Amino acid sequence: MRPIMTAFEKSPDGGQGLARDMRVRWAFEEVGQPYEVRLVSFKGLKAEAHRERNPFGQIPTLEEDGLVLFETGAIVLRIAEQHPGLLPADPAARARAIMWMFAAVSTMEPPIIEREQAGYSDRGKSWYSTERFAFLEERIGVRLGELSARLGENDWLDGDFSAGDLMMVMVLRRADARLLEEFPNLHAYVERGKARPAYQRAFAAQWRVNGEGPVPV
Amino acid sequence: MRPIMTAFEKSPDGGQGLARDMRVRWAFEEVGQPYEVRLVSFKGLKAEAHRERNPFGQIPTLEEDGLVLFETGAIVLRIAEQHPGLLPADPAARARAIMWMFAAVSTMEPPIIEREQAGYSDRGKSWYSTERFAFLEERIGVRLGELSARLGENDWLDGDFSAGDLMMVMVLRRADARLLEEFPNLHAYVERGKARPAYQRAFAAQWRVNGEGPVPV
Repeated sequence: MRPIMTAFEKSPDGGQGLARDMRVRWAFEEVGQPYEVRLVSFKGLKAEAHRERNPFGQIPTLEEDGLVLFETGAIVLRIAEQHPGLLPADPAARARAIMWMFAAVSTMEPPIIEREQAGYSDRGKSWYSTERFAFLEERIGVRLGELSARLGENDWLDGDFSAGDLMMVMVLRRADARLLEEFPNLHAYVERGKARPAYQRAFAAQWRVNGEGPVPV
Repeated sequence: MRPIMTAFEKSPDGGQGLARDMRVRWAFEEVGQPYEVRLVSFKGLKAEAHRERNPFGQIPTLEEDGLVLFETGAIVLRIAEQHPGLLPADPAARARAIMWMFAAVSTMEPPIIEREQAGYSDRGKSWYSTERFAFLEERIGVRLGELSARLGENDWLDGDFSAGDLMMVMVLRRADARLLEEFPNLHAYVERGKARPAYQRAFAAQWRVNGEGPVPV
């Protein structure tokens, strides 16, 4: 039995590969594990059948041999623990790769998502303002600067490509390209991630669900 | 050599145990691992010596046999993997406990921290308003309601107490007590966590650094 992942029936990004199922698809592709996809409508996300999988009504989830998981970080870690290719064998290097996974979702992602949400859920609110966007982007810029300084001239965050890089590249993709371009090494880091054959297979797979026409190069 | 953790020289919460070192202290206490603490001043957080430990200039960090880790989730997971007591032996249950760790920092915590930050870093800004606070608290309320529904009448999120509960209890402590009290089972869940002897030892240890007078009961 192949593992089953849930994804948006139609991603709001129209196939840009920014939805979180892309992270799980990429992980499966890196380790060569075939998987099935169960598409869920927006209405279905909040229905009881999906809440059973994820009480917060979000995608992606993973079902495998009776195990049901949600949280992208936990799913990617599970895949990385079951198959070689996403975590180093050395215990200290392995712990650092997991550290970067947490850093991606817990330190880098929240200000990026806050800025993203301010663009739509705050629309029409009294506090919706370009001044506030600038404030939020400055906060993202601080984190990007810190990450840029740590990455330096390295290809990946700690030795070879790992699940930590996979998560970080995907989180950085959610930041406005304008912000990322101020840090050429981070921009190049994201491009390196996107150039991986496994990324491209995953991107094409989500494009077939969400996009229109041929897969953009 | 005992592992060395960093913590605030003086926590801004004056000993309420809301700073993230409390999560690591609690994990060490649950598994019975003695540890050393290196206190860091606010200035020291942004100094090069600490940036070496954590590029984002935050506490806590862990140093152990040459391994240096940051990110509370990664540190607690490392402790849980090295010692029995915080992760179930069954592989599926273990994966679910790790899932709850990610859910704590990636799904529950961001809106809670956003509300917290809005109370101080937004002060004096044009968008600082009670209307915005209500909006942010409604968002937290949605997540609390979803978590409450999943927890139901259970003592812990999935079977016995795990590192997932440890992280979730600490994240819920950061939410305004007013919001939590709308969900009696979540309130009781947090109180159950706080009643654990390991929690109380950890709390007393951080109080000796940050508080004044006898440890509050």
